[in-house]
Amino acid sequence: MKAAIIGGGVIGSGWAARFLLHGWDVNFFDPNPAAHTKAQQTIAQARLSLTTLYDASSLLEGELRFCASEAEAVVGAQWIQESVPEQLSLKQAVLERLNSLASADAIVASSTSGFKPSVLAQRLSNRDDQARTLVCHPFNPVYLLPMVEVVASKFTNPQVVERAEQWLLGINMKPLRVRKEIDAHIADRLLEAVWREALWLVKDDVATTEEVDRVIRDGFGLRWAQMGLFETYRIAGGEAGMSHFLEQFGPALQWPWSRLTDVPELGPELIAKITSQSDAQSGHETIAQMEARRDRNLVAILQGLAEQNMQ
Amino acid sequence: MKAAIIGGGVIGSGWAARFLLHGWDVNFFDPNPAAHTKAQQTIAQARLSLTTLYDASSLLEGELRFCASEAEAVVGAQWIQESVPEQLSLKQAVLERLNSLASADAIVASSTSGFKPSVLAQRLSNRDDQARTLVCHPFNPVYLLPMVEVVASKFTNPQVVERAEQWLLGINMKPLRVRKEIDAHIADRLLEAVWREALWLVKDDVATTEEVDRVIRDGFGLRWAQMGLFETYRIAGGEAGMSHFLEQFGPALQWPWSRLTDVPELGPELIAKITSQSDAQSGHETIAQMEARRDRNLVAILQGLAEQNMQ
Repeated sequence: MKAAIIGGGVIGSGWAARFLLHGWDVNFFDPNPAAHTKAQQTIAQARLSLTTLYDASSLLEGELRFCASEAEAVVGAQWIQESVPEQLSLKQAVLERLNSLASADAIVASSTSGFKPSVLAQRLSNRDDQARTLVCHPFNPVYLLPMVEVVASKFTNPQVVERAEQWLLGINMKPLRVRKEIDAHIADRLLEAVWREALWLVKDDVATTEEVDRVIRDGFGLRWAQMGLFETYRIAGGEAGMSHFLEQFGPALQWPWSRLTDVPELGPELIAKITSQSDAQSGHETIAQMEARRDRNLVAILQGLAEQNMQ
Repeated sequence: MKAAIIGGGVIGSGWAARFLLHGWDVNFFDPNPAAHTKAQQTIAQARLSLTTLYDASSLLEGELRFCASEAEAVVGAQWIQESVPEQLSLKQAVLERLNSLASADAIVASSTSGFKPSVLAQRLSNRDDQARTLVCHPFNPVYLLPMVEVVASKFTNPQVVERAEQWLLGINMKPLRVRKEIDAHIADRLLEAVWREALWLVKDDVATTEEVDRVIRDGFGLRWAQMGLFETYRIAGGEAGMSHFLEQFGPALQWPWSRLTDVPELGPELIAKITSQSDAQSGHETIAQMEARRDRNLVAILQGLAEQNMQ
């Protein structure tokens, strides 16, 4: 099996690492040659993490090839993953080119966190191209986090979606088929809501970036790593049940608990405040050190959960 | 040391377990005798979790006493924790009574997730009572999750806050002093934002309760259990830095990524939908089974993170 990774930033490199370490050959293309170094660092980091997480002997590594063009990268690839910057016209143009270059049986997937697949595919003139194009939105670090949102456009062939999910399961991911196209799918809608409220908290001097992070990390983040929102609230409701809980909770939604109608203006002042707080919080580490810390923690969590679930 | 636990629901029982298993004597009062059984179950569950998490021999268990009245419960208690239902006038009345009963050097803390401490304390006629009253808002399960939001009112004596934090550190919690009084403090503002958006997703048939939970659990929940929001975004920004990331992110806040201005109506129809989806998702387990699963997972995560941080 061969995957073509088009666009080699954090997400593209993460995809490359995940495919590669699950036995796929990977053709990698990014117009910026500096991306190659970063991709190799990401893959080394992923190798370290995955050999700790899994039985190392079970990992069959594929072959990595840095390609000089999109055309070279897609040759022989069953899976083509687009991870270029989040700009609609750019993504549309890249997907059009990739489709024109891809072999007939290839799947063309976009990593977009925000755009609807039907909007991405609307410029494709060829029906067959539209039929094999879909969204597969992963989470950073792609080589460790199992979730991937799979979103079909109104043109996508259901068999393509089926095949995509099978292949994603094969690289140890947990695909979630999103029922409806919607801007930002599911995850980024939730994240956006938190992000907006967090910006208000920092802007209004209720909390610093570090304090927001601490509340999340040592509080509800620990719950969410192993149960979601609804199961947590189901427990909170106790034996009286979910509907009882919801009936009690309902009125609270009318309380002034968040800055409902306002979007904070992310102007120079707020940007400077967040940046300096973030520097104070994490500036003693390089990004690479933070990534390594994150990955060690994720491996520890995933390992702990896996052992727990085997018992 | 002795703690008086007033109100023995999920939160009160969790406080009782945490104090007790860290060597405090606990006087427990709830007007409903059925709360005693539930508290004992919670303590048994906590004992199981904490003896797995810590060196069992390091846990010195205090003595638990079920009391017949508030007056009996507060005798000799240095810490009085109010965890009655989230109704303002009820909490105000209980805090007034507890203050009138407490010994002079006791701290009186409320578990409120929503009310500002100055509002809770405004009815207290005695300045000394106002000075020793504050909010200590924990997270369920209280005996496992380390976060507690500590919020002083405008009347609270800073030395009381200081002492409260020292004692919370002593029972292995990670107190966060909240800088400003604000409805719902920090955590529940963030949670409320996610909750509102999640209700929309279910109402609009974009996702079921289980799908929302999966996206959280297998996606960003894993990130948040070991880093918060801002550190995650700092990494996403890469070496270009936080301000570069924010400048790029800014415009996205204006996109239609969430149902900004609307609060979903949590009427009978939506309640029925969520309840039936939640039953389909988790109805095969009792709440006790779900709690046990949650706690095993939390222990595994906390253990994994602790081992990681010792290396």
